[in-house]
Amino acid sequence: MVIDRLIDAIKAKDGNPSVIGLDTCVDYLPDGMREKCVNLSESGKRITDFNFALIDAIKDVVPAVKVQVAYYEQYGVEGMAAFRDTLAYAHQAGLMTIADVKRNDIGSTASAYAKGYLVPGAPFESDFITVNGYLGSDGVKPFVDQCKANDKGIFVLVKTSNPTSGELQDKQFSDGVTLYDSMAGLTDAWGEELIGKYGYSGVGAVVGATHRRQAELIRAAHPHLFFLIPGYGAQGGKAEDLAVCFRDGIGGIVNSSRGILCAYRKDKYASYDFAEAARMAAIDMKEDIKACL
Amino acid sequence: MVIDRLIDAIKAKDGNPSVIGLDTCVDYLPDGMREKCVNLSESGKRITDFNFALIDAIKDVVPAVKVQVAYYEQYGVEGMAAFRDTLAYAHQAGLMTIADVKRNDIGSTASAYAKGYLVPGAPFESDFITVNGYLGSDGVKPFVDQCKANDKGIFVLVKTSNPTSGELQDKQFSDGVTLYDSMAGLTDAWGEELIGKYGYSGVGAVVGATHRRQAELIRAAHPHLFFLIPGYGAQGGKAEDLAVCFRDGIGGIVNSSRGILCAYRKDKYASYDFAEAARMAAIDMKEDIKACL
Repeated sequence: MVIDRLIDAIKAKDGNPSVIGLDTCVDYLPDGMREKCVNLSESGKRITDFNFALIDAIKDVVPAVKVQVAYYEQYGVEGMAAFRDTLAYAHQAGLMTIADVKRNDIGSTASAYAKGYLVPGAPFESDFITVNGYLGSDGVKPFVDQCKANDKGIFVLVKTSNPTSGELQDKQFSDGVTLYDSMAGLTDAWGEELIGKYGYSGVGAVVGATHRRQAELIRAAHPHLFFLIPGYGAQGGKAEDLAVCFRDGIGGIVNSSRGILCAYRKDKYASYDFAEAARMAAIDMKEDIKACL
Repeated sequence: MVIDRLIDAIKAKDGNPSVIGLDTCVDYLPDGMREKCVNLSESGKRITDFNFALIDAIKDVVPAVKVQVAYYEQYGVEGMAAFRDTLAYAHQAGLMTIADVKRNDIGSTASAYAKGYLVPGAPFESDFITVNGYLGSDGVKPFVDQCKANDKGIFVLVKTSNPTSGELQDKQFSDGVTLYDSMAGLTDAWGEELIGKYGYSGVGAVVGATHRRQAELIRAAHPHLFFLIPGYGAQGGKAEDLAVCFRDGIGGIVNSSRGILCAYRKDKYASYDFAEAARMAAIDMKEDIKACL
């Protein structure tokens, strides 16, 4: 099962429960590459070059990459080609892939999205995608159906890492359950047939590192949910806050994007090129997180 | 303001408050076109041909088209080229464009999406996009900021048309307000600086035609929200259910996708080619809706 493969990949990488977020935009590129981004086509090519070098540098350190499609969509069709090629290159490099797309729609339309990502040979084939569950079960079912058919997985947005996520997600329904906990409960149900040998389901949850109390509550109430954990690093989430997401060293995978992609701009890594700096930062992130589990 | 331009376009098209949804997939194409879709590139080209012919046929009947990106993403980069070209062709034909993308993310990432759609010259430039507000205000703000800067608009998912939309959206918070109504309240706040001459905001709401009671409640409580109304036709929504969304003939725009795209397969329009059948069906839809307002 895909979730077992992800956990096995974490174990195989020295128990490193982290994922590098390839939120690559032109602004993050080193000067020499950024200057060449004079149009969409050149931007797409330089972003692809950057990602390929980064993947080569970190592929023996981390088990997975997360590719955030928004950063590619903004460069149009040419950006989407970079998105496609990055997912394929990471897969060839032996990394698990998470397409962070937060797609959501009514059933017939969700089926079309699922065909784009979760079917063998799909144009943007990934091991996992992220999904927004606001539409309820029949909007998520087409994704789950493809997960079952093709050994793929999804992460449903439960408690997001952004500052105002509580505005709706933390509100309590009249039955005493918060919106985020209601979403976690639905996510449990969607994934109940996809639980693997470690007790986690291929239908997991996005739970931000920036909201420790909620993460702790979700972990306690939803033992089968594997967490995709954004918010570490640039967004302010600390390794010590992440420990509540894990049991016996497993239970989630922590994402860092800007902190790794732009590591070469930090004093600590300034003597390295961008790819080597990313590798050093990824190793430091691993040690930081593992020390707290 | 963009919302005034949309309402003026409705008035200019004989008061036709309907939008054609270009949810074009290979399965919907006539036999002669479908047979040529042997790969992604050919699929993208035939879908583009179909859309261009359809736009030519309906451009004097309807004020706008809604292009559902899922149907293009499933054909990869080649599909996204068809999406881009369809939006551009519709704009050139004088139609308002709604990119139905339901995008959502944390602020920095939402900014990237907004650059893809809501900036002049953006790769997928549209007059409006649809947005999912589950992340709360800071996830929506980047879209609203671009709306203000560039005279664009968004429709926030409030009460969706799918059968299980009530699973979460109809649940009542402990303050007595439902999730969909809480979302409508936030949408009001997001759009308060974008209210045009007709009293409607450029930050509107997606409200399904299939849930009449909720539509009526939202209309009464949120007078500034202009509705994008899916669910008419193939999804089961009836014109008489739509009347509650309108006041004095304005207040929303009703979408039909499959009912128009595949009109040529219905007995009633079988003697016409697909484009002419779509035109006839669009005229029939206009009469059906106008009779109920």
